[in-house]
Amino acid sequence: MESVDPGHLVETAEDGWDMGEREGDWVDLTAQFIVKAHLGEIPEAALETGRLVLMDCLGVALAGSEEPSARIARSLVPEAEGEDGALVLGTSIRSQAEQAAWANGVAAHALDFDDTSRSMEGHPSVSILPVAFALTESENRSGAELIAAFLVGYELQAKLGRVFGPLLRAAGWHSAGVLGTLGAAAAGSRLLQLPAKETIQALGVAASMASGLGANTGSMVKSLHAGNAARNGLIAARLCQRGFTSQRRALEAFLSAFSGSKGVEEIALSQAFEQLGRPFDIVAPGTDIKLYPSCNYTHPAIDAALAIAGEDGFSLAGIKTVKCAIGSRGRVLLRRLPATGLEAKFSLEFCVACALAHRGVDVDSFRDAEVSRLAEVMGRVAVEEQWPESGDPIPEATVTVTWVDGTQRSASVVHPKGSVCNPVARSEVEAKYHRLSARVIREDAVEESARLLGRLETESSIRPLMSLLQRR
Amino acid sequence: MESVDPGHLVETAEDGWDMGEREGDWVDLTAQFIVKAHLGEIPEAALETGRLVLMDCLGVALAGSEEPSARIARSLVPEAEGEDGALVLGTSIRSQAEQAAWANGVAAHALDFDDTSRSMEGHPSVSILPVAFALTESENRSGAELIAAFLVGYELQAKLGRVFGPLLRAAGWHSAGVLGTLGAAAAGSRLLQLPAKETIQALGVAASMASGLGANTGSMVKSLHAGNAARNGLIAARLCQRGFTSQRRALEAFLSAFSGSKGVEEIALSQAFEQLGRPFDIVAPGTDIKLYPSCNYTHPAIDAALAIAGEDGFSLAGIKTVKCAIGSRGRVLLRRLPATGLEAKFSLEFCVACALAHRGVDVDSFRDAEVSRLAEVMGRVAVEEQWPESGDPIPEATVTVTWVDGTQRSASVVHPKGSVCNPVARSEVEAKYHRLSARVIREDAVEESARLLGRLETESSIRPLMSLLQRR
Repeated sequence: MESVDPGHLVETAEDGWDMGEREGDWVDLTAQFIVKAHLGEIPEAALETGRLVLMDCLGVALAGSEEPSARIARSLVPEAEGEDGALVLGTSIRSQAEQAAWANGVAAHALDFDDTSRSMEGHPSVSILPVAFALTESENRSGAELIAAFLVGYELQAKLGRVFGPLLRAAGWHSAGVLGTLGAAAAGSRLLQLPAKETIQALGVAASMASGLGANTGSMVKSLHAGNAARNGLIAARLCQRGFTSQRRALEAFLSAFSGSKGVEEIALSQAFEQLGRPFDIVAPGTDIKLYPSCNYTHPAIDAALAIAGEDGFSLAGIKTVKCAIGSRGRVLLRRLPATGLEAKFSLEFCVACALAHRGVDVDSFRDAEVSRLAEVMGRVAVEEQWPESGDPIPEATVTVTWVDGTQRSASVVHPKGSVCNPVARSEVEAKYHRLSARVIREDAVEESARLLGRLETESSIRPLMSLLQRR
Repeated sequence: MESVDPGHLVETAEDGWDMGEREGDWVDLTAQFIVKAHLGEIPEAALETGRLVLMDCLGVALAGSEEPSARIARSLVPEAEGEDGALVLGTSIRSQAEQAAWANGVAAHALDFDDTSRSMEGHPSVSILPVAFALTESENRSGAELIAAFLVGYELQAKLGRVFGPLLRAAGWHSAGVLGTLGAAAAGSRLLQLPAKETIQALGVAASMASGLGANTGSMVKSLHAGNAARNGLIAARLCQRGFTSQRRALEAFLSAFSGSKGVEEIALSQAFEQLGRPFDIVAPGTDIKLYPSCNYTHPAIDAALAIAGEDGFSLAGIKTVKCAIGSRGRVLLRRLPATGLEAKFSLEFCVACALAHRGVDVDSFRDAEVSRLAEVMGRVAVEEQWPESGDPIPEATVTVTWVDGTQRSASVVHPKGSVCNPVARSEVEAKYHRLSARVIREDAVEESARLLGRLETESSIRPLMSLLQRR
């Protein structure tokens, strides 16, 4: 009789399900990193950027909580009984951590005003901040644990993005929804203090819950992706804390299915994951902080248009044409005339028209009514693709305004303000936090919350902070 | 000055997000069908099969509620306050409809004992039954509305499966998770009585929430896919009832992203969707009812092994080899020696060993302990791929048992019992419902619920039925 080891699972044909196991690889490296990265060993640069990004994204989430997408989402969220649960930001609702994370993820991305990871070419924080806040609050963990969970969640997403972000986008996916789910599971596993084995299980569960179509850009669903990623990652961690099982191979299948590629590049993966935290991706290549609540591909043109609009003697009257030449990576923005404010965030015509007409681009610039109000100015904006361009992931832009009297003014921007090559000062991020959070919370709570966010890792509980983040 | 229509959205480059709109097509056909299909116009054959499948899947869900995956999932589900909400099947917990649908979806697929659509090559009911029950209960709609919602949800999934089910599987996805989310959104939209426009929006939201990796087969995540699909589809409908927006093009992007194919076949799509309900896919090509709680690809071999084990003079002692030849579609089952009961559901070696050793294959056959207990018998089973095979989607099997004394017995099965070419009688489905539901609910509730399920379309409220489906 043949002897068989029932534990030995072998590979199946390529169109089959595969229950096979592999030896130590990037999965183990990742789990070890998630479990073990100690705040004391995290370089000050990563910590400082982490604090700054948390403050930035929190302000965006507070202001975002007033958007229709966030309001509708949280109307489905029931209040938790008793003291358990977590705050739905910018409200007085406390809900189950999963539900609060969902509502807060939608709010965080509702304005498209949150930071962008260069490695992901997408939004890393909107899925992990909600998990970090909801679990830190409901489990009453410390500010230090919150930051550590946020940083490991960010790092996992960014390193995944580095390996297969472009494939993901080309296949039609929105990275914040897809990679965000794994980042959220990492942050959740960390805050629930899962061991490495359960962390791997949680990542495998999350891999089967990741989703989000790029084609829903310009609709409320784009922000829903962030909420779903947050909630699903948190649920994955919670399930595995209680013994839920996934297949380890799900992680490799995740890379394969979402990249549309059968062969995942093992070497690239291992190399990327050996570098977890060396350096932290949030430091290098870094994260772009947005100064305008629109697609960051529109930011160079906005900066250029604002420069022109700020010059002495500028007048909107008598403008004949506005030529906007954008680097070829910006071709996704070509000919995108919007019908709604959410679509306007991805319209170069609208963003340039708005910068010229209002000499500023902010949250209220993207109301639906503004789209028709600026139709005439938009009609004068002509966008074209230019060659060559810099190697920067954000496409450079040149805006040229020509008046009927023949006058012409032009401005070019390669690195928009807030991007890693043209970074904003801490004070500018603080000013953005003040401006956005003051739309929702009390003025004294703005001051006090900013102070607490600046020294978050020294707070033994974040509950005092959370009490400041309720609607005034 | 150029005149621009801000409502005119045009196509972007192929790697971009696309906010473009199209004229009437399969999306409109689908929405019209979901909104308008009247029970009075649904043929009796579809209605009768629908009732039968509902009873079958409900029994499976009740028994499944005792499985570890279902228990862990519902441990995260909070009870709803007051009388609102829906029953978590097989318990006394009432929760928000979204949450109940989630828990019930996991329970419904926990045993892998539910029906299989030929067009999907997957599980259509486990994502839509939970939505149909939870919303019918919480909104206090009628049994007729429940069946209609179930049938339109089933039909949408099946027709989608017909167009791109094989591509979906090849790309690494589990159809119950992916297509199930759209089916659940359809059922949810129908029960919430959304107009066609909002139904299209809901499908677009659901398209961005669909997920589920085939690689998680053999773990608890496979059943989680059904729960997620149910909850997400329901949430999509609820969100759009309240004004949430998606992009219409998301539906086409959904097909493209999950099939790994840039060019969705428009003609095939339109042809498939013109045939919505003509006939109902649940009637033709039909749905397979499972008599064993394992992958239906194992069923021909189980039938063959049971035939041999049922012959006079059969003895497990002295068996030298068990040869199991399976049609080439069954190659996904080759060399799948399991470590757990969940993996055993996808192991031909285990299923054949179990059929021979126990002369039966049922829920308790797939306990983890059985896997090691049957290791010795499994060790004698050799599986091989055979050519040619029938055109049936389920791979045929021939089992040949050889004893040490040279005796040999062989049996071949092309269409296993329960499959559409070898259908079970209504009485057999009722017997399965009795057997499975009696594991959880009171004996008199078994009788009474079966009676109500048999005439569901005449019930003005399903709340009396739901009260019978609580834990005894």
